[in-house]
Amino acid sequence: MTLPPSSQICRQIPSQVLLHGGNRDWAAQQANCLPQEILDFSASINPLGTPASVLRAIQQAIPLLSSYPDRQYLSLRQAIANYHNIDSDWVIPGNGAAELLTWAGRDLAQMQAVGIIKPAFSDYLRALNGFQANIFKLDLDLEHFRPAQEENSSKNLGLLLNNPHNPTGKLFQRQQLIPLLEQFGLVIIDEAFMDFLPPSESQSLIDQVANYPNLVILRSLTKFYALPGLRIGYAIAHPDRLKKWQSWRDPWSVNVLAQAAAIACLADLEFQQKTWGWLTEARLDLFQGLAAIPGLAPQPSAANFVLVKCEISSLQLRDYLLLNHRILIRDCLSFAELGDRYFRVCVGTLVTQTKLLTALAEVIENIAQ
Amino acid sequence: MTLPPSSQICRQIPSQVLLHGGNRDWAAQQANCLPQEILDFSASINPLGTPASVLRAIQQAIPLLSSYPDRQYLSLRQAIANYHNIDSDWVIPGNGAAELLTWAGRDLAQMQAVGIIKPAFSDYLRALNGFQANIFKLDLDLEHFRPAQEENSSKNLGLLLNNPHNPTGKLFQRQQLIPLLEQFGLVIIDEAFMDFLPPSESQSLIDQVANYPNLVILRSLTKFYALPGLRIGYAIAHPDRLKKWQSWRDPWSVNVLAQAAAIACLADLEFQQKTWGWLTEARLDLFQGLAAIPGLAPQPSAANFVLVKCEISSLQLRDYLLLNHRILIRDCLSFAELGDRYFRVCVGTLVTQTKLLTALAEVIENIAQ
Repeated sequence: MTLPPSSQICRQIPSQVLLHGGNRDWAAQQANCLPQEILDFSASINPLGTPASVLRAIQQAIPLLSSYPDRQYLSLRQAIANYHNIDSDWVIPGNGAAELLTWAGRDLAQMQAVGIIKPAFSDYLRALNGFQANIFKLDLDLEHFRPAQEENSSKNLGLLLNNPHNPTGKLFQRQQLIPLLEQFGLVIIDEAFMDFLPPSESQSLIDQVANYPNLVILRSLTKFYALPGLRIGYAIAHPDRLKKWQSWRDPWSVNVLAQAAAIACLADLEFQQKTWGWLTEARLDLFQGLAAIPGLAPQPSAANFVLVKCEISSLQLRDYLLLNHRILIRDCLSFAELGDRYFRVCVGTLVTQTKLLTALAEVIENIAQ
Repeated sequence: MTLPPSSQICRQIPSQVLLHGGNRDWAAQQANCLPQEILDFSASINPLGTPASVLRAIQQAIPLLSSYPDRQYLSLRQAIANYHNIDSDWVIPGNGAAELLTWAGRDLAQMQAVGIIKPAFSDYLRALNGFQANIFKLDLDLEHFRPAQEENSSKNLGLLLNNPHNPTGKLFQRQQLIPLLEQFGLVIIDEAFMDFLPPSESQSLIDQVANYPNLVILRSLTKFYALPGLRIGYAIAHPDRLKKWQSWRDPWSVNVLAQAAAIACLADLEFQQKTWGWLTEARLDLFQGLAAIPGLAPQPSAANFVLVKCEISSLQLRDYLLLNHRILIRDCLSFAELGDRYFRVCVGTLVTQTKLLTALAEVIENIAQ
């Protein structure tokens, strides 16, 4: 394939800010190929794929499609509760963590104002703006947050953050977060990527939910188990709060295949071990490979993605990679504070990462010329 | 099996009002059998089962689970739009019609007050109460509704009704509904059962949406195509309203299997014809069979269910049928105005209906003794 000059390439794709990774259909349209021909580094999905045990569970559940889901989701909630060693009343399943984020947004919007970390995942703004929340922004180091002078005024404030943080991959330590539970009236911690850390490294606050009725943990099952098309996540919080959330939504939000898949996911300890093993090795390979390319500065990450600072426009880089290599990376324009000098890539397999690194090096050299 | 006296049976099941049909798990627990051993007449699901074409489409879509759904749902919206001969901007898919009812509730709650028909489906109260709507009730004949005296005051009122009406099966005529679109500021018509009427008998108002920006039609695909476990429905309304609804919820509420299934459903014209043929014959058989049992008075229905007035307690009848025959009917206690002298049964196959009718006759004779 002959490379057209980069200016020509950039004219081919209308300037478009992508709000989320994983938009293969859009990418395939731009690159004039089939969606499955796109090598997707934009969505942070486990490249080991959906576990075989989970695919079997989905197949076995297909005859259940002709019945309504159990409104109480008893077996699903029990499986989640067992996994985290908590009581099932403290669990609510959702149609993806994204659905639960909607109800977190509604709950948070009742606070005087809600803090989010900058840069923040764009869907947080969606969920908060959907209920007209007042939003303020906190620095990533959480150091510059000072509760208002009145002793209890910060009790009227909400906080929504993810741990590990997206898109930086930064891991907040438990001892850094626990004091915030005293300062804020409502704290929602999105642990969508926490399961990528082996238990010995986890900084999850699930065990604090029993102590803090103002704490909610959001979890996703779709990234680790490669099931974003199925929609399954859950929240862990005080039963009274979960009853309130349930009263806001319909009784059947989780489909029966997602229910069966989730139970199988949590039971597949072998897949979990395999994923933790892969991630340690592949993330190091990716980090070192990126660091070796002139003009790129990857940031240390505890998650299955790496944020990369780049000296050239990440949009230009994205379009070049897409049109010439059918590789999709995540520009960071939807993170207002990052602008066009950052991109995010997920950790892949060693084989796909080699393709990415080779293409990146080539494209950067071409653009520089 | 020896029949215990009815009073004994009734003590076995804690008095429980079921909010919705199709709770097989609960029923199986009560009857001490497997969920699949329950003959379910409580949920109004097409007994012909999920079409083979749809099961194939679901199977073929399983590899897509590892990608996010298309945020725009372009192909799904286009398929729905083609089916109804409208533009795809006027379509929003939902995680079951029940999810869209939540957003209908939010929209309606912004009106001064919202009318619902009595008796009303309990999930309407859930959706309206979830957003603190002021609710008033209209008679089923719609005759006793008089807009307030001020000329435009009814423009501040909302209306939520289903057509055909659940649980009575009554079909409102288009000419009866169209004047309401002038009187009410926002009208949501839940046509969850309208697809059970062949096109020549349909009283759908989908073709009026282009004329009335205050009209929303809700549709379900899970009853006709026997897919309540998968969660798929849609709304048809003015694009501006649908954009507002979309801003309230997350971008991936329909899973990829539901998306593929829905497209296959609408394309299966043969299954549609078969269902219309079955329903005409089986509903007549059910109606006549019920009418022949002393003490039962079935109501004429345009839908795939029949409301039955009974001279004895429907709860007693329900428990008797469940414990002794593993047959589940829908008591109507969740419809406040009906109380315990009504039950609802869905239209089944001629074979299952014979079982139902035989059991009903036997139970009623036993209770009478």
